[in-house]
Amino acid sequence: MLPAGSSSAIHWRQIVSEKLRVDYAKIPRQWRLETHVIEKARTTKQIAGSFIEHLLDPETRNITSLDVQDLVAAMANGSLSAVKVVTAFCKRASYAHQLSNLLLEIGFDNALARAKELDDYFESNGKLFGPLHGIPVTLKDQFHVKGLETSMAFVSWIGTFEGKRGTGKERVFESELVRELWSLGAIPIGKAPETNNNILGYTRNPFNQGLSSGGSSGGEGVMQALKGSVFGIGTDIGGSVSMPAAYQGLFSIKPSSGRLSFKGVANTGPGQQVMPTVPGIMGHSIATLKLVFQSLLSTEPWLHDSHALPIPWRHEREYDPDSEQGYKPAFGFMSNDGVVTPHPPIARALRIVHEALDESGYQLLDWKPPSNNESEELHGPIARGDGCPDAYEAIKMSGEPIVPEIDDVFPGGKLMPPLPLPEYEKFVIHMKDFRNRYHDYWMSSAGKTHTGRPVEAVISPVTPYAAVIPGKFRYSAYTNSLNVLDYVSIVIPVTFANRDIDQVSHDYKPLTNEDRINMELYDAEAHDGAPAAVQIFGRRWTEERLLSMAHLVVDALERYAQRHGRMV
Amino acid sequence: MLPAGSSSAIHWRQIVSEKLRVDYAKIPRQWRLETHVIEKARTTKQIAGSFIEHLLDPETRNITSLDVQDLVAAMANGSLSAVKVVTAFCKRASYAHQLSNLLLEIGFDNALARAKELDDYFESNGKLFGPLHGIPVTLKDQFHVKGLETSMAFVSWIGTFEGKRGTGKERVFESELVRELWSLGAIPIGKAPETNNNILGYTRNPFNQGLSSGGSSGGEGVMQALKGSVFGIGTDIGGSVSMPAAYQGLFSIKPSSGRLSFKGVANTGPGQQVMPTVPGIMGHSIATLKLVFQSLLSTEPWLHDSHALPIPWRHEREYDPDSEQGYKPAFGFMSNDGVVTPHPPIARALRIVHEALDESGYQLLDWKPPSNNESEELHGPIARGDGCPDAYEAIKMSGEPIVPEIDDVFPGGKLMPPLPLPEYEKFVIHMKDFRNRYHDYWMSSAGKTHTGRPVEAVISPVTPYAAVIPGKFRYSAYTNSLNVLDYVSIVIPVTFANRDIDQVSHDYKPLTNEDRINMELYDAEAHDGAPAAVQIFGRRWTEERLLSMAHLVVDALERYAQRHGRMV
Repeated sequence: MLPAGSSSAIHWRQIVSEKLRVDYAKIPRQWRLETHVIEKARTTKQIAGSFIEHLLDPETRNITSLDVQDLVAAMANGSLSAVKVVTAFCKRASYAHQLSNLLLEIGFDNALARAKELDDYFESNGKLFGPLHGIPVTLKDQFHVKGLETSMAFVSWIGTFEGKRGTGKERVFESELVRELWSLGAIPIGKAPETNNNILGYTRNPFNQGLSSGGSSGGEGVMQALKGSVFGIGTDIGGSVSMPAAYQGLFSIKPSSGRLSFKGVANTGPGQQVMPTVPGIMGHSIATLKLVFQSLLSTEPWLHDSHALPIPWRHEREYDPDSEQGYKPAFGFMSNDGVVTPHPPIARALRIVHEALDESGYQLLDWKPPSNNESEELHGPIARGDGCPDAYEAIKMSGEPIVPEIDDVFPGGKLMPPLPLPEYEKFVIHMKDFRNRYHDYWMSSAGKTHTGRPVEAVISPVTPYAAVIPGKFRYSAYTNSLNVLDYVSIVIPVTFANRDIDQVSHDYKPLTNEDRINMELYDAEAHDGAPAAVQIFGRRWTEERLLSMAHLVVDALERYAQRHGRMV
Repeated sequence: MLPAGSSSAIHWRQIVSEKLRVDYAKIPRQWRLETHVIEKARTTKQIAGSFIEHLLDPETRNITSLDVQDLVAAMANGSLSAVKVVTAFCKRASYAHQLSNLLLEIGFDNALARAKELDDYFESNGKLFGPLHGIPVTLKDQFHVKGLETSMAFVSWIGTFEGKRGTGKERVFESELVRELWSLGAIPIGKAPETNNNILGYTRNPFNQGLSSGGSSGGEGVMQALKGSVFGIGTDIGGSVSMPAAYQGLFSIKPSSGRLSFKGVANTGPGQQVMPTVPGIMGHSIATLKLVFQSLLSTEPWLHDSHALPIPWRHEREYDPDSEQGYKPAFGFMSNDGVVTPHPPIARALRIVHEALDESGYQLLDWKPPSNNESEELHGPIARGDGCPDAYEAIKMSGEPIVPEIDDVFPGGKLMPPLPLPEYEKFVIHMKDFRNRYHDYWMSSAGKTHTGRPVEAVISPVTPYAAVIPGKFRYSAYTNSLNVLDYVSIVIPVTFANRDIDQVSHDYKPLTNEDRINMELYDAEAHDGAPAAVQIFGRRWTEERLLSMAHLVVDALERYAQRHGRMV
């Protein structure tokens, strides 16, 4: 094989074709969908839910409908084997892949071998191997998994280790977090790419295929929406976990930096230490997020990664109304950030949450913190002030075109000059100041709550959009402000966009020119059926507490649904 | 008054004279030393200990000989008042200042007023105000303290807030850590400058005035050595707490980043977030370091500073031979780093510690980690890759000359061009890799200990020097490697250089050319009488454990001294 970056006649498209051929060969014949099914999927608006489920045999459908807790319980009492669970999810994942082009890497063989090992372990020891025993997981193709390669969808990285050949690390090296997952009993079955790429193409939204799955962990988001695995791991530096979760109707947690290990993860911006990329978890319940997060911490990442914080799971920070003598937390509530109004489906989701919390007796405070205009000015220069030369090189090396989603990073297909270091540092100083002012605002809320304590969490939009029309994504400050702040964010799905009720209100007045333009992009028909979510966010390193708060919100939403009927 | 940076005829020397005049006026007349005493001090080799003590009245001498615990106990039982304690230390600090030019800022008035308040509190409430009730503290002139200004010894900053006039923050704004100190009952009485500056001149070593006090918290180090306050707060990005502590025979702790708040501290490199400057504590015992560190954490800095880690004091990480069933920790031992051999007094101090630990039954493992050559290559570019434009501007604005200690930062008096951001990031990537390889080496020591657990701490030189001959400082990798690693370091004084026994051994062979040059600088006569210290260091964020380990070392040294006589 020719060296990476060779100027030989091998066209990047040939490399891609070969990769797709090899990957397809990893799907067992009996799981291959017929062409007419795949074609029907292409023209079907919604393939999440009944569409994919009708393709499955009942056993696969039943198993893949279970969340982590039920699966673990079933394996613990012997009613399900790990092999059965992994087989079911691999089958469903292969269907999801064939319908939506989701898997850059397929690891069914290794997964089944590991499932067999776990079954043997269970048989010999009469107990589960770990808290995630036999649980299939998929990851964004940025994590290295033994037996699989990591291309991050850069064509030039195919057949290499992070763009280099012959390192001896290819298909052997593992990211620390992946090591932890195996050690907990979880079973990686495959890896999903960024939302748009030159290998698998564009990842559409499975609830409304006219819409986007959102970036950048979009492939992983769709995999979860189609339930091809039980939970997913993505990465986030500006909403790349939160947005796909919101667009796909999932729960997700983006922790503060340092709680989960990012050691040994492929990354084209690894020198950027100021606002680091963090791993995030997507799944189908708060309980799943909590179990996975808590399990990962139980492996003591700080003993394996010098950049992981030595903060174990802190039971004492969870909310316990009994030991806290009936203390009822107050929430901040941000219906908009003063810059861009969320589209009608999101505004409605927020109203539902507001009413639900209000009816459950929680105090809600209007949230008017330091402006997202300020965090917007900081996020880009800090995240990409170097011009992203590594990503540029990885793209250019193969000759593949730059996908439109990152056109603004490389305007005119050119590398932008880096910021001078002293200027970069000014942005960092500004960021630190912004963090402290935001913190002060947060703490000052103690003066306005009935409890005399600051709000425990804030409810806000995740993005203005109930998914997004491809090419019409404009505003990411609701998420990237939380990366600037390094705050914890949990996404909670609330409802679905409905063309009949989600209309722009007659008394809508744009907050800003940006708001006006952004609202003009709303199209009730186009967004119909897309999930509408909110996020709940908390200060740095408050994951335990925020998961408790998210639980309160979900409980309140359930009570609300019982009283008011489904949240259409 | 003219604006900062004015090109008026006011010469920087006039500004300095005026500042010195104002400061001198803050020393009560009855505490002013006669000229002949000051002149005698200038020509006396050692002014720490009996020289300064003979100048004091017995009460002042008695009070200032007490460490924190005894002072607090005496105030708790009413046998001493805070006013008496503060008066005694202010008096002694004023003597120390007059002998050694240590105080850029004198805050005796405010300190005494606060002491009065605390006495009133004690009288009204029958209990102490906090764990550091009435304890006089001095700080490096980088911390903002109400009532005092902060110039960092930049002439252009005199009369400003960090170089700016009319901000309203002058003499009002406080650093978060200072706020915490007041809230604990501690009483700031003054601030000390960098080791060499154009306001107070060169800070000499009080044990041997032919030597340096070490940089950069040298003034604070001398203040502690002369016992002008009970403990001191410095800052450290490359050994600036550890080195002055070692040169002055003090204990010190440099924690990992994020444990103590650095919010609101004047800093000319604040955009550098990758290897941040941290506050450090100097004092006269491990017990003092522990009490101060633990007390500061008890204020929950993370509720006030968005960059402080939410890690409270962790009792469960302290070493407890009972609950750990007789487990005896193993130590790494680094007699040299393979690059530069410590001078004979330090080599002897290390041998003493080795023998003491060995005799106390602790296992010692040879420590051969990733090389300090590597950390040396990283430290400068990361700490000063921007060329330090803020410091340069602060110096140039007044026209004061650049002191020789920072000649290499501004070669030829010129600002160096900053590193391009992508190059800077390469250093950061290298640093992260270095940290992880060092960590792996550390954890691998478990394979060599009798306990099956990794070493708990490593003993090493702090610097090759028992203090240093001015202008002959060459090698700082023993400390700055720990900043690159963000490890915790505790300095432990062991003995004093002795011209008669600390000779370069006949079989000394240079490890490197640098080692040869460095050893040629050793002069047994010149270094005679200087303190010789070692450091004990531990992995990131292991402060509780490392303080316990330091205690074991001190106990072992005490037993050693009982068996072998004084450690000359």
